[in-house]
Amino acid sequence: MKLSQLINNIKQKKTYLCLGLDTDIDKIPKHLLKYNDPVYEFNKSLLNRLHSKIIAVKINTAFYESRGTKGWSSLEKTINYINSNHPELFTIADAKRADIGNTSNMYAKAFFKKMNFDSITISPYMGEDSVNEFLKYKNKYVILLALTSNKGAKDFQLENNLFLDVLNKSKKWRNSNKLMYVVGATKTTHYKKIRSIVPNSFLLIPGVGSQGGEIRDVINHSTSTSNNIIINISRAIIYSSSGADYIDKAEEVVDKYNKQINL
Amino acid sequence: MKLSQLINNIKQKKTYLCLGLDTDIDKIPKHLLKYNDPVYEFNKSLLNRLHSKIIAVKINTAFYESRGTKGWSSLEKTINYINSNHPELFTIADAKRADIGNTSNMYAKAFFKKMNFDSITISPYMGEDSVNEFLKYKNKYVILLALTSNKGAKDFQLENNLFLDVLNKSKKWRNSNKLMYVVGATKTTHYKKIRSIVPNSFLLIPGVGSQGGEIRDVINHSTSTSNNIIINISRAIIYSSSGADYIDKAEEVVDKYNKQINL
Repeated sequence: MKLSQLINNIKQKKTYLCLGLDTDIDKIPKHLLKYNDPVYEFNKSLLNRLHSKIIAVKINTAFYESRGTKGWSSLEKTINYINSNHPELFTIADAKRADIGNTSNMYAKAFFKKMNFDSITISPYMGEDSVNEFLKYKNKYVILLALTSNKGAKDFQLENNLFLDVLNKSKKWRNSNKLMYVVGATKTTHYKKIRSIVPNSFLLIPGVGSQGGEIRDVINHSTSTSNNIIINISRAIIYSSSGADYIDKAEEVVDKYNKQINL
Repeated sequence: MKLSQLINNIKQKKTYLCLGLDTDIDKIPKHLLKYNDPVYEFNKSLLNRLHSKIIAVKINTAFYESRGTKGWSSLEKTINYINSNHPELFTIADAKRADIGNTSNMYAKAFFKKMNFDSITISPYMGEDSVNEFLKYKNKYVILLALTSNKGAKDFQLENNLFLDVLNKSKKWRNSNKLMYVVGATKTTHYKKIRSIVPNSFLLIPGVGSQGGEIRDVINHSTSTSNNIIINISRAIIYSSSGADYIDKAEEVVDKYNKQINL
C-alpha cells in the first residue's frame, strides 16, 4: 500500500484504529469450535463487520504459531482473506523478527512475498543490516520497535536513551522513508522527544485497552501536525464477549473508541 | 535436556559443534526435489550421518516460514524426527522472538510445548518480562542475543556497551540459571569482558564458516575454564556440495572442524 492511501483512509474513515487479531482458540466463543478452522471463522466474522470502522489489521504471529501448522494455515487464510476482500486495510505482521541479512531476506520473503503483508514489526537489536532486506520491497514498511508498552521497556530501551538512539540512527538508513515505529500507549511522557526526532513517521501505538493506555492521552501527545498514527487495540475489542453476541459487542467497543478518537 | 547431559555429551563426543539446518529449498541438491518434502529428506539424511559428530542442532525458523504452511510442516517434522531418533542432540529454535508477556507465553507454547525444542534464541530489546515466560519451563533454555556476528552489531549492541548491560542485568533475572547467550565468532576481542560477567553460562557462537569467524580463535578466547560453548556452523556444512555426494562432503567438513576443535 502507498502511504498516501493509508493517510487518505484515515481521513475518510475518520479513525486511527487498528484491529489486533491476537486470536487465541481457547478464548473465542465456544460455538465457533464446530467449524473446521474456528480461528479463521472468528477473524473473518469480525473483519466483515468492522472493516469500515478501522484502517488497519495487526496479526500477532505468536497466537498462530502456538498451534503449529494448523495455526500457520489460519494465519495464511486470514491474510489472504483480507487481501482479497478488504484490500483497503493496511496489514501488519506483528512478528518482531530480525536476523543477519541472509536470514532476514527469508523473513521478508515469508511476510512480504508469500503472504503479502503491507508491513512487519522488527526488533532493532541487530542493527541496520538486519533491517535492510525488509526495506528493499516497494510499498512495504518496517515498523521498528522503539519504545514498547511493557514494563521491561525500562530495562534497555530507556537505559541510556537507547530508544532515541534507535530513532536517530535508523532515520539515516537507506530507504528510511519506509520506516515506522512502535511506541507504546503507556509511554506518552516520551512522545514529545520522539516526535522531535521523527515528526513525520507513522507511529504504531499498542497498549490501549487491556494494557492500560488511554486513547485521548495518546492522541493529545502524538498528533500535533499530521494524521500519522495507528492505534492498535486487540483483546479489549475481540474478547469483549465470549457469547454468540461477540460481533455486536466488538462493534460497540470499536464505536466507543472511535468516538473517543473523534477525528 | 538437563545441562549436565549437554556437558556430558560434549565430553563424550569431543566436540562443541552444532549443525545449523538453515535449509533453503533452492540450494539443496536437485535430485531431492522428487520427494514429497525435500527439505525434510535433506535434514534427515544429514542428521543420520552426522549425529554422532555433533552435540546440537540449530534450526532457523526463517528458512521454513518463507515456504508458508509447507515450510512449517517441514520444521515440525524435522524437530519431531530429532526428538524421536536422536534425543541426545540439544535442539535450538533459532527464532529470535520476544514480545509482551501475554504473547511471549504463546511463543513459549509453540516452541517448548508444541515442538519440544530444548531452547530458543530471544532478542533482549523488550526486557525482562518479555523473556520471563520462556524461563518458566523446566529443562528449557533461553539463548539471549548479546553480541551478534553481523556488521549491524555495532549500531546498538556495541554502543554504550549495551551487550554488557544485557549480560549484567539478565544474570540477575529470576531463573537466570536457564539463560545462555549468543556471542558471534567474529567478535572474539570482546570475549574476555563477556566471560568476566558470565563465566559459567553457555555461549552459542554463530559466525564460523560463511561469515568468516575462525574456530581456533573462538575456542582460545572463550573456554578458559569449562566446556560451556556451542559452535554453530550452517551453510559451510550443509551446502558443501550441491551434488549427490552432499552427505559425504558435509561429513568431511564436520570432520575438518572437529579436528580443529581438537577436544
